[in-house]
Amino acid sequence: MSKTYGVTAIGNAIVDILSQTTDEFIASQAEFGMNRGAMTLIDEARAANLYKLLGPTTEMSGGSAGNTMAAYASFGGNGAFIGKVADDQFGKVFAHDTKAIGVHFDTAPLRHGPATAQCLILVTPDAQRTMNTFLGASIKITEDDINEDLIANSEIIYLEGYLFDDDQAKAAFVKTAELTKKHGGKLALTLSDPFCVVRHRDDFKRLVDNHVDILFANEEEIRELTQINDTEQAHKSIADKCTISVVTLGKNGSSIISGAEHAKVAAIPPRELIDTTGAGDAYAAGFLYGLTEKKPLAECGRLGSLAASEVISHMGPRPLTPLKTLL
Amino acid sequence: MSKTYGVTAIGNAIVDILSQTTDEFIASQAEFGMNRGAMTLIDEARAANLYKLLGPTTEMSGGSAGNTMAAYASFGGNGAFIGKVADDQFGKVFAHDTKAIGVHFDTAPLRHGPATAQCLILVTPDAQRTMNTFLGASIKITEDDINEDLIANSEIIYLEGYLFDDDQAKAAFVKTAELTKKHGGKLALTLSDPFCVVRHRDDFKRLVDNHVDILFANEEEIRELTQINDTEQAHKSIADKCTISVVTLGKNGSSIISGAEHAKVAAIPPRELIDTTGAGDAYAAGFLYGLTEKKPLAECGRLGSLAASEVISHMGPRPLTPLKTLL
Repeated sequence: MSKTYGVTAIGNAIVDILSQTTDEFIASQAEFGMNRGAMTLIDEARAANLYKLLGPTTEMSGGSAGNTMAAYASFGGNGAFIGKVADDQFGKVFAHDTKAIGVHFDTAPLRHGPATAQCLILVTPDAQRTMNTFLGASIKITEDDINEDLIANSEIIYLEGYLFDDDQAKAAFVKTAELTKKHGGKLALTLSDPFCVVRHRDDFKRLVDNHVDILFANEEEIRELTQINDTEQAHKSIADKCTISVVTLGKNGSSIISGAEHAKVAAIPPRELIDTTGAGDAYAAGFLYGLTEKKPLAECGRLGSLAASEVISHMGPRPLTPLKTLL
Repeated sequence: MSKTYGVTAIGNAIVDILSQTTDEFIASQAEFGMNRGAMTLIDEARAANLYKLLGPTTEMSGGSAGNTMAAYASFGGNGAFIGKVADDQFGKVFAHDTKAIGVHFDTAPLRHGPATAQCLILVTPDAQRTMNTFLGASIKITEDDINEDLIANSEIIYLEGYLFDDDQAKAAFVKTAELTKKHGGKLALTLSDPFCVVRHRDDFKRLVDNHVDILFANEEEIRELTQINDTEQAHKSIADKCTISVVTLGKNGSSIISGAEHAKVAAIPPRELIDTTGAGDAYAAGFLYGLTEKKPLAECGRLGSLAASEVISHMGPRPLTPLKTLL
């Protein structure tokens, strides 16, 4: 019997606040831990202070797994998202945008507590994005928010590594892994960010060893996880732990290993490179859409490249052109 | 003695919620008064219902006069804005974006009352925008919000016609006209929207006859104001009431009359036509920047064309490229 949802994702529900900036500004913020090209966790006070320093901004729904589900739905996939917003305007924006693209989303908003999570994204002239995230309500997700019916009715459960940044969210993560196994689904994980891997390396390793069927990582993340400096060696060292492992290589495409099969897939150059925010999220969406459509691995990778190419051709992490029209 | 600000604008402080849509959807909303290409006023309940029907959206600060000031500052002009937001997330977004581009903005937010105004903007494939505005806190602007020091220290005071849609806001408008005269400033007015002109034709005529030094209108607005069907005739019929009158003609550029001088200025085609939201607002900004820089009228018009061309080449009503870099 086929399941209702191809993919259900669990992740931080975040509204992005995007601003164009200069390399000099990024450098000036090093004392606050800002890492060019990476994601830095910040508290509410720092978020307010940093926001004051930014030029005009654009607000749009984001969050790694949320972006992936938006792109998955944009391909025509039937998916769901579990994540926690607050009962505020940004929370309504996130819920609207998620449902508006056709993703099932019914996690109850947080009534009392911090505001909806926001990510201040600084885009430099080279299209690189530097992220500063105030996790707010998003990490108030608990085991109670993990809807067993959704897990039972999904072929693939997709988790973002960023959830590991909070113990309560991590508990929800572990419950999800158990429910996925119970209901015969596949568990997919993205490592999210090299610094996130450094923060939680042992936990990630245990999860990959014991639970993960499909692993997504970029070059830096796979090297951090395995502590092997050569990307291909690093990838191969972990490949037998999962049914499928995928390493994205930026403009060099992606590398996919499943058992004895090793596919290398080219990137698709964007019409114009504007903002790399969400490239990895979109790649995962295309790949997962291919998988749930029973495509060969190389074709799954090509769909990933296609989605990433659309997303990096404009500001913002989610597709502006319906991806199914690009198929 | 030169004044601190080139332009102080007074208008509705609005956050735009932009969504791409189809002509069929616009047609389906006719029963709710939606007017393709125009602005329809809606209440909070209708705003919530319409929002539910939209696809994924992007939020950014808007409002006609607010957009004009953002573009004026983007040219390098020193300006100020007076407008009312609520004490909520969208209000903070508007205040941030206004100040971030260098526009002076210190109107106290509304503490108790409706939410920050929002405009649901539907962009069709031909790049036309259809606007649906819930005025919320923006029309709670009162005479008390009109800071006399700002008026006294501004060469030009720029008002948007949309303010006439509320009696309290209109009172603030009238006070502004009086203070402008008292302090020797120039009063500029944009008619905003043909339906707005229909709603308030007699009031606008009195204002133009008695107070307005610089008038901005598009073809439909000037025809509605004068009830003359030929645009050039309509323009000429009103020209002797103001020091300068400007009629924008879309892709045919603009027509400027001042005394015996009649300048016709070409439009500047955009790199790619994406979204016409804010075209008139940007034109006014360029024109006003030219005026405060003491440029000849034809050059003021060219700066208007330049700003409009930038703004219609992307989603959203405010410049993404600093306009001073295009000079």
